[in-house]
Amino acid sequence: MFTHKKELQYHATPERPDALMARRLQEILGGQWGEMSVMNMYLFQGWNARGNEKYKDLLLDTATEEIGHVEMIATMIAQLLDKAPLSAQEEAVESDPAIAAVMGGMNPQHAIVTGLGAAPRDSNGNPWTSNYIVSSGNILADMRMNVTAESQGRLQVARLYEMTEDKGIRDMLGFLLARDKQHQLQWIEAIKELEAKEGIVVPGTVPEKYEVSDVTHTLYNFSEGEDSKPVVDGKEAADGNDFKYIKNPEAMADKPVLKAPPAQLHSTPPEK
Amino acid sequence: MFTHKKELQYHATPERPDALMARRLQEILGGQWGEMSVMNMYLFQGWNARGNEKYKDLLLDTATEEIGHVEMIATMIAQLLDKAPLSAQEEAVESDPAIAAVMGGMNPQHAIVTGLGAAPRDSNGNPWTSNYIVSSGNILADMRMNVTAESQGRLQVARLYEMTEDKGIRDMLGFLLARDKQHQLQWIEAIKELEAKEGIVVPGTVPEKYEVSDVTHTLYNFSEGEDSKPVVDGKEAADGNDFKYIKNPEAMADKPVLKAPPAQLHSTPPEK
Amino acid sequence: MFTHKKELQYHATPERPDALMARRLQEILGGQWGEMSVMNMYLFQGWNARGNEKYKDLLLDTATEEIGHVEMIATMIAQLLDKAPLSAQEEAVESDPAIAAVMGGMNPQHAIVTGLGAAPRDSNGNPWTSNYIVSSGNILADMRMNVTAESQGRLQVARLYEMTEDKGIRDMLGFLLARDKQHQLQWIEAIKELEAKEGIVVPGTVPEKYEVSDVTHTLYNFSEGEDSKPVVDGKEAADGNDFKYIKNPEAMADKPVLKAPPAQLHSTPPEK
Amino acid sequence: MFTHKKELQYHATPERPDALMARRLQEILGGQWGEMSVMNMYLFQGWNARGNEKYKDLLLDTATEEIGHVEMIATMIAQLLDKAPLSAQEEAVESDPAIAAVMGGMNPQHAIVTGLGAAPRDSNGNPWTSNYIVSSGNILADMRMNVTAESQGRLQVARLYEMTEDKGIRDMLGFLLARDKQHQLQWIEAIKELEAKEGIVVPGTVPEKYEVSDVTHTLYNFSEGEDSKPVVDGKEAADGNDFKYIKNPEAMADKPVLKAPPAQLHSTPPEK
Amino acid sequence: MFTHKKELQYHATPERPDALMARRLQEILGGQWGEMSVMNMYLFQGWNARGNEKYKDLLLDTATEEIGHVEMIATMIAQLLDKAPLSAQEEAVESDPAIAAVMGGMNPQHAIVTGLGAAPRDSNGNPWTSNYIVSSGNILADMRMNVTAESQGRLQVARLYEMTEDKGIRDMLGFLLARDKQHQLQWIEAIKELEAKEGIVVPGTVPEKYEVSDVTHTLYNFSEGEDSKPVVDGKEAADGNDFKYIKNPEAMADKPVLKAPPAQLHSTPPEK
Amino acid sequence: MFTHKKELQYHATPERPDALMARRLQEILGGQWGEMSVMNMYLFQGWNARGNEKYKDLLLDTATEEIGHVEMIATMIAQLLDKAPLSAQEEAVESDPAIAAVMGGMNPQHAIVTGLGAAPRDSNGNPWTSNYIVSSGNILADMRMNVTAESQGRLQVARLYEMTEDKGIRDMLGFLLARDKQHQLQWIEAIKELEAKEGIVVPGTVPEKYEVSDVTHTLYNFSEGEDSKPVVDGKEAADGNDFKYIKNPEAMADKPVLKAPPAQLHSTPPEK
Repeated sequence: MFTHKKELQYHATPERPDALMARRLQEILGGQWGEMSVMNMYLFQGWNARGNEKYKDLLLDTATEEIGHVEMIATMIAQLLDKAPLSAQEEAVESDPAIAAVMGGMNPQHAIVTGLGAAPRDSNGNPWTSNYIVSSGNILADMRMNVTAESQGRLQVARLYEMTEDKGIRDMLGFLLARDKQHQLQWIEAIKELEAKEGIVVPGTVPEKYEVSDVTHTLYNFSEGEDSKPVVDGKEAADGNDFKYIKNPEAMADKPVLKAPPAQLHSTPPEK
Repeated sequence: MFTHKKELQYHATPERPDALMARRLQEILGGQWGEMSVMNMYLFQGWNARGNEKYKDLLLDTATEEIGHVEMIATMIAQLLDKAPLSAQEEAVESDPAIAAVMGGMNPQHAIVTGLGAAPRDSNGNPWTSNYIVSSGNILADMRMNVTAESQGRLQVARLYEMTEDKGIRDMLGFLLARDKQHQLQWIEAIKELEAKEGIVVPGTVPEKYEVSDVTHTLYNFSEGEDSKPVVDGKEAADGNDFKYIKNPEAMADKPVLKAPPAQLHSTPPEK
Repeated sequence: MFTHKKELQYHATPERPDALMARRLQEILGGQWGEMSVMNMYLFQGWNARGNEKYKDLLLDTATEEIGHVEMIATMIAQLLDKAPLSAQEEAVESDPAIAAVMGGMNPQHAIVTGLGAAPRDSNGNPWTSNYIVSSGNILADMRMNVTAESQGRLQVARLYEMTEDKGIRDMLGFLLARDKQHQLQWIEAIKELEAKEGIVVPGTVPEKYEVSDVTHTLYNFSEGEDSKPVVDGKEAADGNDFKYIKNPEAMADKPVLKAPPAQLHSTPPEK
Repeated sequence: MFTHKKELQYHATPERPDALMARRLQEILGGQWGEMSVMNMYLFQGWNARGNEKYKDLLLDTATEEIGHVEMIATMIAQLLDKAPLSAQEEAVESDPAIAAVMGGMNPQHAIVTGLGAAPRDSNGNPWTSNYIVSSGNILADMRMNVTAESQGRLQVARLYEMTEDKGIRDMLGFLLARDKQHQLQWIEAIKELEAKEGIVVPGTVPEKYEVSDVTHTLYNFSEGEDSKPVVDGKEAADGNDFKYIKNPEAMADKPVLKAPPAQLHSTPPEK
Repeated sequence: MFTHKKELQYHATPERPDALMARRLQEILGGQWGEMSVMNMYLFQGWNARGNEKYKDLLLDTATEEIGHVEMIATMIAQLLDKAPLSAQEEAVESDPAIAAVMGGMNPQHAIVTGLGAAPRDSNGNPWTSNYIVSSGNILADMRMNVTAESQGRLQVARLYEMTEDKGIRDMLGFLLARDKQHQLQWIEAIKELEAKEGIVVPGTVPEKYEVSDVTHTLYNFSEGEDSKPVVDGKEAADGNDFKYIKNPEAMADKPVLKAPPAQLHSTPPEK
Repeated sequence: MFTHKKELQYHATPERPDALMARRLQEILGGQWGEMSVMNMYLFQGWNARGNEKYKDLLLDTATEEIGHVEMIATMIAQLLDKAPLSAQEEAVESDPAIAAVMGGMNPQHAIVTGLGAAPRDSNGNPWTSNYIVSSGNILADMRMNVTAESQGRLQVARLYEMTEDKGIRDMLGFLLARDKQHQLQWIEAIKELEAKEGIVVPGTVPEKYEVSDVTHTLYNFSEGEDSKPVVDGKEAADGNDFKYIKNPEAMADKPVLKAPPAQLHSTPPEK
């Protein structure tokens, strides 16, 4: 069960309106790696956790914080959209290249659909979709996704920081840079613990006999040239075994031949 | 530029048809974490790499191998669909619960749309979409996604392995278990190298002054109770700083108040 | 800013596992009219509200409750998936039609992808998408969507209630039936207030001179026969004007003729 | 069965080309609340109606009119795209901010994909999807969606009207403003009739004993502060019962604890 | 402008309910190649046609017929859903494998969402999307898509015909088989006319000097082995030139090297 | 199994950066008719082919070439994005309309998400989806799709060619124009062979008795006026039968009446 406070976790007020930045900030709100993604992903991972209470709680703590981050960015976007140019007939558009750029570059749905409000969409107007997230039941696999999400997310925040000199936007983005650092670090901490218990390869519970054994630590060089060789050659893998390198990989099976289709499918029959 | 050999990288022939397993195997072909995802993701990351030739080549080596994995699973599915029950009027459906389960559970598009062929879709028939993948230009961020993809993918392969006793399916899945292990290990190797150069937090190039400084290593306890505390409390984070823990987080900003909308948007005006 | 309590708002424990009902309950979790939709819709409407504090707060109160409803249903689904049949080779499938039905009818992603956890998807496995929701800046327009969402949602809950005799599921659904009733009634209350101020037709701010005036209260009978006539004929519309009825509507404009395409588009040139 | 007349229902000719407005008008053609949505929604509701011939006919009358509205807007868009700037090298782009805005802001698919034709997409190029519509079998629930669609749609038309001074566009939009008014009013009329028969809460057929009884007319204040209280406090709900208000809602159930996952799923086992 | 007749173009009544066939028939209603696709595709192609009145009219004639086909299939599906088993607790499910198959295999949204009505979705419940269709402004290109759509569609109808022995379903499908034949033939007729005018290669207006000339009629053998050779070897192409065959294709350009990324993107810098 | 060469099949280097063209070229990379579509479509058709080795090989030859085309266009886009304007505060934006157009018109995800890399998306940022492709098991039906894809694709390449004067872009597009010509011609060749064997109407295996016989070669004139008549009137169809023309088509079935819904669905009961 959740409760809401009317105050924001952190400041989210720009110095001045900027409809282009409003469009761009949609990426970290409703894009693949935006706050809606981490919020929903951590919620589902937390709710689905089966008996690892400290991770379950950590996931729900962080998910709950992320709802507040969506709130902050939505609030920022709504304010950046104040005074957005709504008509190409406005005088300024016809004489000022910078305003023309805003006119051309702003998201038309910010005017037509949301009435200068934030949308649950990315910077190109794609709807947020749960295709972006995962909750698998294997916490180590999911923690790797979580640290990925915080890495990709923080990268986007850093890029947006460089795209503006507005002190209000930068203050909020600086807060997100800091929080995404913490979130990366806490998921890395959890990964360290889990790898210590379950091993480095996910899932750690697969018996070795399941695997085709002689292809487990081998890099096949499927491109001409050997640029990739130094990444693994002569090194010990993180699970303690040595990497091998195969310069010219061979096919291990024959050419497949499929059976003829049954007549009632009206497919092309095989040539004789 | 690419070339094709008609032989498969590894065996992909089931002992006997099984339309239910055909449906399930679609998950690792065209699902979020299936082979189409890693194939396309590594291709784009490789093509977009700007001057890190060993990683670029490693990505394209592995991408090229993955095209061959899509080929293997597609071939397996086509064979599992041989003899699929096409009509509920077939005698067997009316008397045999196991065949009734197949009739009910098989993917109808395997008969109607693909004519007993594999589809670029997941086990529920959702189309594959590039929403599943990322290529960001930050190789460390992307390598984290890659190790995630191989972890989630291998987890699904392991689950499918347990769902069948067909030796042919298990042989192919055992090959994939082994290759996904290698791919996890090679991406982990790359991550180790990159973290050594760029630091543990992505992106490593953000100046500290960008960040709101006092919130970088703090876990806010947004859920009642303190189950999550032991994950970080009293520990040093992977970047060498100490974690802090705030039991009752406070809002750092005021309640936001938005400006009234302009009249030409025909939104609800604020109450006075 | 939000906070989380570990307790659920209401009971969410089934009497016994039932993987078919787990699949069906996904509809009210991650479907078009599920709890994820109302949760996200009310959040965005609340955050985007410009100066109508009582509605803004009501939206955020209700949104916050809905996060807890997603939590309840997710928890219910995870428990319904305990003991789900994972392999068609299990003995029971081969002899028991009811288990065969479960085998055929359960969502394969509940086993392969989520590891017996709830997914942010509907009963056919379609991902939740923000295409389902709206926040327009016109509160009356949005309140009409909200009462729609609670009507469609409650309808689905009622249908699910009839599909099971499990007392635990019914208890949770009975709670949702009651809450959806309240939510319908509170949005209807808001609609009454807003219509009193702004008029019955949305948006109420459009000057009459914008409209092509003689077609505002007319039902055109575009189907043969006059079955629809009694709905409006001889009645006063809710805005106080009389409905008109046109039995055989005429075209008011000519056949359109488009200009030839420019050559550099390589379109088919018009025939001479 | 349907037939087509070559004439348009109403005028759809702009004074002059305007590729930016062409992009914007896509929203009311192929967006969430565009004419494709109401056309398809009313068609499906009409076809699925089980024995309420006057509503069935009204739905099909209106659906049939809407096909003609899609036709009008598509025709308008094609004409607005005449003379669209196709190349950034055109002289005008380099000197005229207004043309630069068009160049930057127009939909590139209008040139590359459709050859200056309308697309079944919204103003950001998102494909139309049947996720936008509903046909539930409960006519009152659906009529509420219909009045929503006409409200959101008319709101967007009004906003577009303000964005241009082109008399031809405004004439067509003025026609749509008038028709959307009629459609709102006729669905409201149907709602009045249906509520009189079935009650205000949808679905009206749910026995009271299904509901958890003491939570049916209660507003839970899940946000701090009591701004929302006046919407319901001391009022009678539309179904004749009194609203209640709970300032500090309590959890009614315990913290959920999920069972450990079965080993063959290779999920993280619970900590001991 | 359109008008509607209440009678169906052709019979659409099954002998008896069959919820599995209802699910399968959704494919030809709302699937990639279903009637919604051809209806919407021909409408847009017709509306966008610039000055080829006979094709424009042919497209709109056929589009208008297709609206009636959607109507027929929707009506058929609604009737096939009568008496669908709604609860796994029903006695029949527990004893009868055929009913168990229906229970497992039916679309749960047919009960929960549409109330035994047709949905604008395919046989796996995927929403119809305008991604399925095209209107390009080049009528020959589009006519090729149209003949494809009628070919894929008729193929699916033929497969469905084989899956049932219900005389009512077969009668309707037999009608569609006949109409899809006509539609294939009429589009082929148009293609013949257009190819005679514009040449066999689309678009016919591209000057030869645009093309890299020595690769226009060459099959590159990118797979080992020469199975594909006989398709073109020693033959004259449809445009009157001779095919060539290259057994071992060579790369014509160098390995690409991309520039380093700018610092403000925080991407991985190139290794030195 | 596949292998990769580091060299490109053909040159893909622009004369100078152009972020607007980068956005536009995404259409032929990741759009409906882009290279990702033909690559994936030919791969799946090849893998699913059941015993027509020459076509299977031709499909895989061409698919393998197309992977290299995706590579070329991705490489081109990455280079066009060099020096893209990242901030509206840059001086040039404020004074130069052409740069303002680029600022407004470029894809923001090219900066924020991909770090100046190509994306698996179209020119409006829509993700690539397997909804774009088909593999049906009927090779003639699929070859018709393939010639469509090469026609639509070549049309888009031709349009893009006209939109730029950059010699490097034009060189690459000229190569694609030539290859798309070849691919059209080779699929046309295959179609000729298959039609000779299987007949002109797909699928050719449907017994005539399945069809409702008197509607197979008839054009119904569902639009007023007879513009479409000359396309078929008095002509022999490609299958050797004569076309018929019906000026005023009649309904062949009655108005449908659906049964009342069962009570447990809580739908609207029929009026008496």
